[in-house]
Amino acid sequence: MQKKNATAAVIGAGDYIGGEIAKRFASAGFSIFAGRRNGAKLEPLVKAIEAAGGEIKARSVDARKEEEIASFLNDADRHAPLEVCIFNVGANVNFPILDTTERVFRKVWEMACYSGFLAGREAARLMLPRGKGNIFFTGATASLRGGSGYAAFASAKFGLRAVAQSMARELGPKHIHVAHLIIDAGVDTEWVRQRRLEALGPNALDNPDLLMPPTSVADAYWQLYQQPESAWTFEMEIRPFGEKW
Amino acid sequence: MQKKNATAAVIGAGDYIGGEIAKRFASAGFSIFAGRRNGAKLEPLVKAIEAAGGEIKARSVDARKEEEIASFLNDADRHAPLEVCIFNVGANVNFPILDTTERVFRKVWEMACYSGFLAGREAARLMLPRGKGNIFFTGATASLRGGSGYAAFASAKFGLRAVAQSMARELGPKHIHVAHLIIDAGVDTEWVRQRRLEALGPNALDNPDLLMPPTSVADAYWQLYQQPESAWTFEMEIRPFGEKW
Amino acid sequence: MQKKNATAAVIGAGDYIGGEIAKRFASAGFSIFAGRRNGAKLEPLVKAIEAAGGEIKARSVDARKEEEIASFLNDADRHAPLEVCIFNVGANVNFPILDTTERVFRKVWEMACYSGFLAGREAARLMLPRGKGNIFFTGATASLRGGSGYAAFASAKFGLRAVAQSMARELGPKHIHVAHLIIDAGVDTEWVRQRRLEALGPNALDNPDLLMPPTSVADAYWQLYQQPESAWTFEMEIRPFGEKW
Amino acid sequence: MQKKNATAAVIGAGDYIGGEIAKRFASAGFSIFAGRRNGAKLEPLVKAIEAAGGEIKARSVDARKEEEIASFLNDADRHAPLEVCIFNVGANVNFPILDTTERVFRKVWEMACYSGFLAGREAARLMLPRGKGNIFFTGATASLRGGSGYAAFASAKFGLRAVAQSMARELGPKHIHVAHLIIDAGVDTEWVRQRRLEALGPNALDNPDLLMPPTSVADAYWQLYQQPESAWTFEMEIRPFGEKW
Repeated sequence: MQKKNATAAVIGAGDYIGGEIAKRFASAGFSIFAGRRNGAKLEPLVKAIEAAGGEIKARSVDARKEEEIASFLNDADRHAPLEVCIFNVGANVNFPILDTTERVFRKVWEMACYSGFLAGREAARLMLPRGKGNIFFTGATASLRGGSGYAAFASAKFGLRAVAQSMARELGPKHIHVAHLIIDAGVDTEWVRQRRLEALGPNALDNPDLLMPPTSVADAYWQLYQQPESAWTFEMEIRPFGEKW
Repeated sequence: MQKKNATAAVIGAGDYIGGEIAKRFASAGFSIFAGRRNGAKLEPLVKAIEAAGGEIKARSVDARKEEEIASFLNDADRHAPLEVCIFNVGANVNFPILDTTERVFRKVWEMACYSGFLAGREAARLMLPRGKGNIFFTGATASLRGGSGYAAFASAKFGLRAVAQSMARELGPKHIHVAHLIIDAGVDTEWVRQRRLEALGPNALDNPDLLMPPTSVADAYWQLYQQPESAWTFEMEIRPFGEKW
Repeated sequence: MQKKNATAAVIGAGDYIGGEIAKRFASAGFSIFAGRRNGAKLEPLVKAIEAAGGEIKARSVDARKEEEIASFLNDADRHAPLEVCIFNVGANVNFPILDTTERVFRKVWEMACYSGFLAGREAARLMLPRGKGNIFFTGATASLRGGSGYAAFASAKFGLRAVAQSMARELGPKHIHVAHLIIDAGVDTEWVRQRRLEALGPNALDNPDLLMPPTSVADAYWQLYQQPESAWTFEMEIRPFGEKW
Repeated sequence: MQKKNATAAVIGAGDYIGGEIAKRFASAGFSIFAGRRNGAKLEPLVKAIEAAGGEIKARSVDARKEEEIASFLNDADRHAPLEVCIFNVGANVNFPILDTTERVFRKVWEMACYSGFLAGREAARLMLPRGKGNIFFTGATASLRGGSGYAAFASAKFGLRAVAQSMARELGPKHIHVAHLIIDAGVDTEWVRQRRLEALGPNALDNPDLLMPPTSVADAYWQLYQQPESAWTFEMEIRPFGEKW
């Protein structure tokens, strides 16, 4: 693997999607800066990337804190120029409207929208002087569609999409690629498996084709990164072939 | 005018749109509960509605405070059953992304999205036991499109739209009409006139056909109210005939 | 009823939606020009409107023939100025893609899209010199969403929507209101009832709230007609309160 | 280059986009079947691909003729299994609505929509028995937005998008990847350059960043082809970084 003098920051580097994105960019020679609430949980990811000859720094970051996001990205940029910033924090909840407390509504927004704004803005601040960079946001079905019980989650995801779209229109002409990837499916994580079993019964997982492997999400981000600036995508949606939509 | 045993609450009863909505429903016999940050500013509206034989209660309400919204709507409902709740708080700002402070981003969201969620939820709480009611939200061009400089405003408006859509899908089958009115134009207010003059120069107002009279917005809400439940609209957009879109 | 010196033309004046639209505008004093493939079938509509004191001319029109559309609308305009033209021809079919013959694909397009273009264009030709008029098109769920088996129908409905949107953007500034009404539900017709029984079994019609009465569609068109030109809607969707969407 | 036992058919293999798509897939080892109205014009493409060691058959095809499309794709499939079919026929015109003749409206639809339906259906017929294949359609800004003067073109492009979406929903679960690529920009062709000079004056081409190189479109199709079936994109839009949208 040839090392690049560039970092890729992953905010919301969870066990599944975020981790696979980190591995994908590490394997291409990027230095990875991986942040999640509890940085200690990143240890397996650090081991995996280092074992494969990659480079990674793991940090505890509360993405809802302006100073923490700023210092995380500044550190990344000091290590090597920040070329890619991927915001991948989720907060999927479902409550009937009357049971959606103001605390839940605010918290979901802080995690899934406000912190995305902070991450995008701070990444842009570092990239603009160089006229170069990639800022990618993870969206979901709920980015495009509000559903019964999803007032809090869809509101945050719609809001994040608006941030991404506004940034893309402002920063594209300045050579910064802003994109919004809509994952229109369940991703194959322990949490999604449990929810499906609860909601749909013991046969819920019989068709493995309906869950998207986290590596496929990482592939999609890699495609967005590879696009020439003469043909950038702002928004693309991905779903497994068998998904009903 | 025949009095109805029903109240219509207008949250964000400003000098223009909100005021005209209040007059429209008052003239149809509704008791109006009008709330805005500084209730004292509602005096001219109170005079106008009372002079026309209508009934109105004016209140100071900080729509971002859960208790204030709840008690405002509870008072309205105690006065006479709450049949209509219209959320009309705006917060249009434009800043380059790097100049969008976290304070602005948060405040715009609190005003234009979070308070809409609170108002919608509390109205639903009062309407659900009766299986009847109308909850309408004012949207804008930025509800559908993020533009350069609009990360804060569009994010809040996208988020409000998701709240409205999620509520419509949950509450429609329970006989509550939730709608989202997209005003795809400038409304003829002093503030919009000033902004146009600053942005476009002294001839900016030469074509009066491009500004929408606040009474026309009130007409649109009245149309939504009148729809039979067998043919409800969730979303409609309105614009002046001469508007480029 | 006060007679207006104006005609409303309904193209696709079937037994249900088109007929109710005709009655609605007739009851407001319009002279109606009603066209459908087999004009003889319009007799009950003629009787109903005349019994109510209205005025109606019934014609056989093949909407896919340029000359027939042109002469139908010219006749209407000679009778009294053409103020409203509503295109309401449907052609709902569902076939797997491999079974969608080129003949079906072409015919559905000719009925649901091409003839709408002809009707809209000829209505515009008559209305433009007066700088006044209303051209409305009936859309469906399939106007916004292609589904399995709907290649022919959705393609035609998407295409009709593009015609409507292009005309609205060109003709709005010339004081002609072009609108596209999306009926996102089954309308209560004999044909829809039969299809539901076949598809969903004998209980398919137990919930009458899921079928939209044709009169409600007529109400929606009447609302569009009544809008002031300072606040025109191009697109609104209607569905019964209990519809899942 | 390693030869694949597979063909990629390009319908609408013009001098620019279609030609570059052909080269891209040829360079990956596909046998190319290239069709355009006047097959003789494909000679330079044939030379270029063969000079690079690739394989290509060039054919005259009127894509609006069912038998011609069917026999073109059947020939391709007999040569080697048809794995990719890309429909790339354009027909961009702009006329005021009153000047849009029925002949233009019909012809644009036949070229840009009807022939796409035929190509997609015949490709699906060959691919379904193998449970494998890729069917891609070229879209444009006008696939999503009708504009003044674009009734014919937008109607055809909307219609093609509906065909693609309906096919994707039906054929995805059968392992056939149907995608719709929206080129939201002018592509750098002689024709686009001339139009821009006419419309915008002699400086229209000063900013080369606003024209998309045909090779970038080919890259985008190559990305769609490479996606794993666990994460297929149906629709993605591409535009140059400097494009206003």
